[in-house]
Amino acid sequence: MILALSGGVGGAKLALGLARVMPPEELAVIVNTADDFEHLGLSISPDIDTVTYTLAGLANRELGWGRHDETWSFMETMEALGGETWFRLGDRDIALHVERTRRLNNGETLSAVTADLCRRLGIKSRVVPMSDDPVRTRLRTEEGWLDFQEYFVRRRCEPVVLELLFQGAGAARAHPEFLAALADPSLQAIVICPSNPFISVEPILAIPGVRQALIDSPAPIIAVSPIIAGQAVKGPTAKMMTELGMDPSAGTVAHRYHDLLDGYVIDHADMSEVVSIDARVTLAQTLMRTMEDREALARTVLDAAAVLRRRKATR
Amino acid sequence: MILALSGGVGGAKLALGLARVMPPEELAVIVNTADDFEHLGLSISPDIDTVTYTLAGLANRELGWGRHDETWSFMETMEALGGETWFRLGDRDIALHVERTRRLNNGETLSAVTADLCRRLGIKSRVVPMSDDPVRTRLRTEEGWLDFQEYFVRRRCEPVVLELLFQGAGAARAHPEFLAALADPSLQAIVICPSNPFISVEPILAIPGVRQALIDSPAPIIAVSPIIAGQAVKGPTAKMMTELGMDPSAGTVAHRYHDLLDGYVIDHADMSEVVSIDARVTLAQTLMRTMEDREALARTVLDAAAVLRRRKATR
Repeated sequence: MILALSGGVGGAKLALGLARVMPPEELAVIVNTADDFEHLGLSISPDIDTVTYTLAGLANRELGWGRHDETWSFMETMEALGGETWFRLGDRDIALHVERTRRLNNGETLSAVTADLCRRLGIKSRVVPMSDDPVRTRLRTEEGWLDFQEYFVRRRCEPVVLELLFQGAGAARAHPEFLAALADPSLQAIVICPSNPFISVEPILAIPGVRQALIDSPAPIIAVSPIIAGQAVKGPTAKMMTELGMDPSAGTVAHRYHDLLDGYVIDHADMSEVVSIDARVTLAQTLMRTMEDREALARTVLDAAAVLRRRKATR
Repeated sequence: MILALSGGVGGAKLALGLARVMPPEELAVIVNTADDFEHLGLSISPDIDTVTYTLAGLANRELGWGRHDETWSFMETMEALGGETWFRLGDRDIALHVERTRRLNNGETLSAVTADLCRRLGIKSRVVPMSDDPVRTRLRTEEGWLDFQEYFVRRRCEPVVLELLFQGAGAARAHPEFLAALADPSLQAIVICPSNPFISVEPILAIPGVRQALIDSPAPIIAVSPIIAGQAVKGPTAKMMTELGMDPSAGTVAHRYHDLLDGYVIDHADMSEVVSIDARVTLAQTLMRTMEDREALARTVLDAAAVLRRRKATR
């Protein structure tokens, strides 16, 4: 069993690579839900959806969100009706949100709905929300506090970020399957995917008990840097680091996980990077343009994890 | 000012004819809302939507519901996800339901939302829900009580109807604009469109005060028969009449409105029909296949109403 911690696009790419180079039913992806929100009366889980669409082979690679086989009649009509259109929702995507919302309102848990929808989309790996309880990222910016999607989509990450808050995290319970997997002696590795540490990975770590359960896990923890040569492949990771007074680098990301990492995969471009934590560093091509890139990086991560696991077992 | 009482398809056709042969801003269509329902978490108003799409020139004439410029990605995906698909919702149609539901949940009234959406779709006539309070048609059938859309769409009007109930009608308040128009001395006519009497017109008449306000109105009331030669143009009107122990005929429809009608328009095919109520009968082609048919029938209704109004004024 391999456990991957993931946010949206970058994390989903590595998760797909993993699902293709290992038995997919032995992979569980624990997904951030702190950027979930309610919009137009619908319960939307952007990171879960990105991971789901990616693993189902439905992801829209050009947009970086939504489905590749999408149509846009809903959005066009919504515009004609004077409705809110800043968060783009395709016609097929909407079906997922409507069905999920109906089932949540019916009393089902987000994890149960997600598991069933993934099964229907033919996904063999498990996609597990970090928690069935609501956690919501809020950002204090130079323009005041913003909800995550207000910041991320509506304002296109433009406001300068001063502080992040994971509302509800303190009261949220980690998904039982997540905690059980962490304590499982047969767990082979915990992979922290190349997702934004501040808004994708740290909400998962902020749930009571998760950080300690990671530390206590018999499996090695290996992260892949989302930063390559000081830049984020996608999204505001580097910009946020600068605004929060940090050096935008692979080393800074490692430092966020200083108490967790057994291994760290960084790009060849960062080979001179000083990673001032006690972890085995592996150099690789971390930019995932093609399916081969995803699979090669996944193999690198699994190989590195295998070495780390033997080392951890003999300690 | 002309007031038209309407259900879905047949009523909407005549309403469109009226809007095209008179100044459209002087037409108000009072629409049945007793077949409204909640589906997939959305507030759906089928008759209001049919009237709206018809007046906006967007109606799908082949289907008899929905929009002619529709796409079906939502429904296809819903099917793949194992969701409910018995009530077909197009991608553009969904936008209307999502936007309406959002605004209703925000505290707006159905009439306010309807008025605004009609304005955005370029409709110059007023489309007014019979009430902003919920009224729901239920049918006692040989298989037990059914909600209206269960009977109408899911069961395709197959169960034998024994009794109808307009749940909530007793507590519903007629829309104030509707009552004000009925009492307005300048009102020229009240047109009961060729809609199903049992499920489209009688829910409107069941709202406390409406029947008396119609009787007290200075304007003549003229109905168009939805039955031609013993058959309904569309829908279960004739089948229902037979099941309820009535003769499926234009005369039976007239009898349902016996205390209201000043005039009654029936098809040439029914010229030998015995209409045993005190109303002036006009023969016309009531089948509306083409736009010319709609306009011609509307002119016939308006001409007949003008005669009836002069007669009523001199009484």
